[in-house]
Amino acid sequence: MVLDLVSSNRCFGGELRKYKHQSAALGGLVANFNLFLPAQASSKKVPLLVYLAGLTCTEDNGAQKGGFFGAAAEHGIAVVFPDTSPRGAGIEGEDADWDFGTGAGFYLNATHPKFSKHYNMLTHITMEIPQVILTAELPIDLTRQSIAGHSMGGHGALTLYLAGSQPNQYKSASAFAPICNPIKCPWGQKAFDGYLQGGVAEAASLYDATELIKKRTDPVNILIDYGTGDNFYKQGQLLPENFLQAARDAGHGESEVLVRSQEGYDHSYFFISTFAADHVNFHAKFL
Amino acid sequence: MVLDLVSSNRCFGGELRKYKHQSAALGGLVANFNLFLPAQASSKKVPLLVYLAGLTCTEDNGAQKGGFFGAAAEHGIAVVFPDTSPRGAGIEGEDADWDFGTGAGFYLNATHPKFSKHYNMLTHITMEIPQVILTAELPIDLTRQSIAGHSMGGHGALTLYLAGSQPNQYKSASAFAPICNPIKCPWGQKAFDGYLQGGVAEAASLYDATELIKKRTDPVNILIDYGTGDNFYKQGQLLPENFLQAARDAGHGESEVLVRSQEGYDHSYFFISTFAADHVNFHAKFL
Repeated sequence: MVLDLVSSNRCFGGELRKYKHQSAALGGLVANFNLFLPAQASSKKVPLLVYLAGLTCTEDNGAQKGGFFGAAAEHGIAVVFPDTSPRGAGIEGEDADWDFGTGAGFYLNATHPKFSKHYNMLTHITMEIPQVILTAELPIDLTRQSIAGHSMGGHGALTLYLAGSQPNQYKSASAFAPICNPIKCPWGQKAFDGYLQGGVAEAASLYDATELIKKRTDPVNILIDYGTGDNFYKQGQLLPENFLQAARDAGHGESEVLVRSQEGYDHSYFFISTFAADHVNFHAKFL
Repeated sequence: MVLDLVSSNRCFGGELRKYKHQSAALGGLVANFNLFLPAQASSKKVPLLVYLAGLTCTEDNGAQKGGFFGAAAEHGIAVVFPDTSPRGAGIEGEDADWDFGTGAGFYLNATHPKFSKHYNMLTHITMEIPQVILTAELPIDLTRQSIAGHSMGGHGALTLYLAGSQPNQYKSASAFAPICNPIKCPWGQKAFDGYLQGGVAEAASLYDATELIKKRTDPVNILIDYGTGDNFYKQGQLLPENFLQAARDAGHGESEVLVRSQEGYDHSYFFISTFAADHVNFHAKFL
């Protein structure tokens, strides 16, 4: 497995690197990710925060606009920004919609034969990128990982935290305006119907944060922010109340699942950057 | 003069607004700017920091990637992000080069007949936007303005501070990787030869920060950061040493002109965002 350095920028006393590599999980396509290494990484292994971006985004949006690096530099936390889907799989219809296919991988492993060779973002995030980091001997302590995300990436953060490849891979999860109950919203239904042979029914036990938190008995460390001015929230794509209710019903109190409603904030990176330091500070407690 | 609100995003407890207006200074073209209003502006007038972006940029780059809002919110400072040139003037050759014409207005008032109707960014920044803000009764105290910028915008910040429309319009100036001595670098020479009837000779007494600081006898408040990994610095487009030497020769010590060489940083917004809070904190002392 070869990791090619595409670019490097000095940033907040550390370094932001863009890498590309041939991704076996994504059917042999070339995949990119950005990696922020804080100054502390020059003398010791540092923990890792995974940031998953939303629909239409790439590995660049969170790195360029997220505002995570000040707090990450302070705490000595590396941050990895994967892409949101495979690129260039050449599947018919893949580029037709902004909310399905390219830029919209939904952080699952596809089972529909049309997509199952390439659309395996779950394996890519939870197994392949860590292994690439290990093979490249980057100064990251992979026993200390947490995960965050925005919108579709918030869905990814919550579901990979609750039911990724292995229990407890991530110490904590946080999300900005996440899709919390995708089997009940148009974005999620469309994605699951397309990527999964069993459609929404197949997704319920694997890829729906609200369903997953119902069955979770161990303590969790989850922070969610959403804005009351978010049009996708108003349209019922996010449904944070469903997740919150399910968490409370399952016995997860405010010390385990904190869901904050932020007055007037919308779905943009201006919202994310406002609370980015809060989220990094939250994860730092567990890393 | 009508100011149209294009969009509004809640941001760091305040609001980021995008406005458009018909710009008399730019020959009647529509111009955009972004304006961050901190929470404090809801109860009182707040001071203003002007941020001028670099070549190829628009009003969005600094707002989306600059990382200014955390510190601006803390200090209660508004930040305005103008565009970098007129748009759509329809002048032959205007869109041919990335470093001249559209996206490259150089914050001057053109005297070449081909450009003099539209390319008047100096008047646009120093007079028109303030007047638009006044007319719209936005909660900004225009007796307290400072100015910052990046690259070509750093040139703009330094020159408008030292010789804009009127003395002391700005309390302080700061710049990230500014073009410090444009009559001696390819970017500046090309711009001045194109926009000014008298070319570089006309520019020397008006639009060259190094020349201007030589003649400045009053105290100044200037902060400059540049990165040693900046390719444009290495190519001799920025020449911060020339400005520093001229400032010292003119009696401006480190308490008036602080030029910091930042090891390994490049020309990108990752560099800017690393030191954005430093610059806002610097201006806050004078606002």
